[in-house]
Amino acid sequence: MTNKYNNVYIKNTYTIGGIYESQGPLKKYFDRLYDQNMYFGEKSFEKAEIKLLKDNISYLLKKVNFQESDIDLLISGDLENQIAASDYAARNFSIPFLGIFNACATSGEGLIIGANFVDSKRAKNCIVSTVSHNMTAEKQFRNPTEYGAPKHKTSTFTVTGSASILLSNEKSKVKIESSTIGKVIDLGITDVNHMGAVMAPAAADTIYRHLTNLKRKPEYYDLILTGDLGFYGKKILIDYMKEQYHMDLSKVYDDAGTIIYNLDKQPVLAGGSGPCCSALVGFGYYFKQMEENKIKKILYVPTGAIFSPTLTFQKESIPAIAHAIGLEVTNK
Amino acid sequence: MTNKYNNVYIKNTYTIGGIYESQGPLKKYFDRLYDQNMYFGEKSFEKAEIKLLKDNISYLLKKVNFQESDIDLLISGDLENQIAASDYAARNFSIPFLGIFNACATSGEGLIIGANFVDSKRAKNCIVSTVSHNMTAEKQFRNPTEYGAPKHKTSTFTVTGSASILLSNEKSKVKIESSTIGKVIDLGITDVNHMGAVMAPAAADTIYRHLTNLKRKPEYYDLILTGDLGFYGKKILIDYMKEQYHMDLSKVYDDAGTIIYNLDKQPVLAGGSGPCCSALVGFGYYFKQMEENKIKKILYVPTGAIFSPTLTFQKESIPAIAHAIGLEVTNK
Repeated sequence: MTNKYNNVYIKNTYTIGGIYESQGPLKKYFDRLYDQNMYFGEKSFEKAEIKLLKDNISYLLKKVNFQESDIDLLISGDLENQIAASDYAARNFSIPFLGIFNACATSGEGLIIGANFVDSKRAKNCIVSTVSHNMTAEKQFRNPTEYGAPKHKTSTFTVTGSASILLSNEKSKVKIESSTIGKVIDLGITDVNHMGAVMAPAAADTIYRHLTNLKRKPEYYDLILTGDLGFYGKKILIDYMKEQYHMDLSKVYDDAGTIIYNLDKQPVLAGGSGPCCSALVGFGYYFKQMEENKIKKILYVPTGAIFSPTLTFQKESIPAIAHAIGLEVTNK
Repeated sequence: MTNKYNNVYIKNTYTIGGIYESQGPLKKYFDRLYDQNMYFGEKSFEKAEIKLLKDNISYLLKKVNFQESDIDLLISGDLENQIAASDYAARNFSIPFLGIFNACATSGEGLIIGANFVDSKRAKNCIVSTVSHNMTAEKQFRNPTEYGAPKHKTSTFTVTGSASILLSNEKSKVKIESSTIGKVIDLGITDVNHMGAVMAPAAADTIYRHLTNLKRKPEYYDLILTGDLGFYGKKILIDYMKEQYHMDLSKVYDDAGTIIYNLDKQPVLAGGSGPCCSALVGFGYYFKQMEENKIKKILYVPTGAIFSPTLTFQKESIPAIAHAIGLEVTNK
C-alpha cells in the first residue's frame, strides 16, 4: 500500500545515543549522550531502557516548548517482550497511546500510522518514538547469550539509544511525502547470525513496490537508507535488487547500520541494528542535513527481522518486514 | 483522542473458538470450532496459535469471496513475545502488514488504526485480526507456571481462539461510528493474579473520556462491553465509575470475560481473558446480534494489562490500557 501525503510535517526530533554511539562518527548530531554507563542511574537494563525513552519524550516536549496536552497521540514500540520499554515509558504521560511491534522496522510503522492520523486531520501533533538497548536485546535474543562466546562476523550490534519524531500538520522544513507499507517476507533463512540476509529481500520488495507504484527511479531520491542490514546485508540488497528487479540502487543507497558506527575501529561486527539504529541515523543525522538543505529527498526504509527465539528453537525460518517513508525538504 | 467516522463499515467477521470456548454459552455463534485438542495438528502450541490465525484469515477471505489482492492492509497482534503468532501467520499472505501490541486491548487498537485508514480512503478493505491460545499464554506469563499449582479466584483464563474483522468503506449493516484511544494507566497495583483490578481504572478513564467528549450518557449505548475484567474486575469498574466519575454504568454494562464461559460450571476462575476474549464475544456473538437488529449501539472497550513478566519480577507495578470503539447498526 503506497500513499502520498499533503499535510504531514516533521516539526522536530529528539535523539539520545549511548556509549558506543557516542564513540561513533555521528556523535555530535545527537541531542544528548548517555555515555557514562549502560544503567543511566537505574537498577536494571530494562529500567534503563524505559528511562531512555521517557527522558527522550520529555526532552522533545521541552525542545518544542509543548505540554503533554498539546500532543494528541503517542505511538511507540521497541524490542523488549511486550514492548515493555514503550508501555512503561508511556504510563508517565497523559497522552493517548498506540503500541506497535515490527522489530527494527518499528519507527517506519509508527511514522506511517502517525502520518495517516495527521494527514486525515484526526491528530494535530503526534509523537512517534522508539528505543533500543544493547544489553536488554542481548539478554533476550542473542545466540549464544553468554558473554565472551565468539560471534559471527555477519552478526550486528544492537544500538543503545532513543528517538522521538514530532509529526504535525503545521508546515515546516521537512515533510513526509509518501509511504509504502511492507509485507512479511520469509525466504526460508534460519541463520540468526545473519539478519542482514534475512531482511534484504523484505527491503527489496518494499523499495521496488514504492518506486514502481509512484513511477520513480531510484535516483528520484538523493538517498535510499535501509535500517540495519549491516555490511553484508547491504551488498546482498544491491545484488538482489539487480537480479530480482533489474534496479541499480548503488548510486543512491546506504545502510544506517554501516553509518552509525566506525566499523573498522569499533567492536560492532557487521554494524548497528535495533529499531533505534535507523531512527538515530535518519532523525539524528539526516533530518538535520535536510533542515540545512544539504540533502533534499530521502527514502527511509527501516528493516526488521520479526523473528521469535521460541520459534527459531522450533526450527522455523525467520520472517522480515520493511516499510518505506519518503522524506522531502519543503520550500519553507 | 476521540474521533467520529462516516465511512467505515464492518463487512464481515470470522471467529474460531477452541475447546473451552466450545463448551461455553456462545459456541453456536462462532464460525468454526477447533475443539479436538489444543494442537490443531501442529507440533507445538506456538505453531498451533499461528495456524489458528492463518486459518482464520483464510476462512474470512473465503467467506466474503475475496482474494488476498482485494485486501489493502492487515493489522494484527497477539500475546506472544514479538507478536510471533501474527508475524508468522502474516508471512502466508501477500498483504501489507502492521504489527501491533496492546495485550488484550489489541483488537481495539487494530480497529482504530484500521478505521482511520478506511475513513481517510487510503484503504478500501482492511482486515483487523487477533489470536490467543491458552497454553502459549500459560507458558509465557503465568505465576506460578507449573500446572497443578493452586490459582487465585481472581485469576482469569486465557481464551483460545481467533477473530478477524473486515473493515470496508462499502456500506453494510454495522458501522464503526466513533472511537477513543486509551492512555496508559498505572495505579500501582502489583498483583499479577488480579488483572481485573489492574485494568478497571484504564477502562474507566477511556469510557469516561469517550462519553464526555461526545456528550453522551452511558445509556446512549445499548451495551458497554469491556474486554476481560472478569467477575471481580466488572464489579470494580462499576464502583470506580460511580466514585471517580459519578457515572452509573450498571444498566448497560457487561464484560466479555464473564460472557464467553459459563463461570459456574467451567474451570475458568474469574472468567475469560486474552485479546481474543473481547474479540470473540464482540465479533462472534454481538456482531451477529447487530446484523439481526437485536441490538443497535455497542461501545466495545477491549482492556489490556500491558505488563512485562521481567519488570514484574523487578517489582514494578502493572500498567493497563483500554480503547473504546462505538459500533452502530445502520439503516441498510
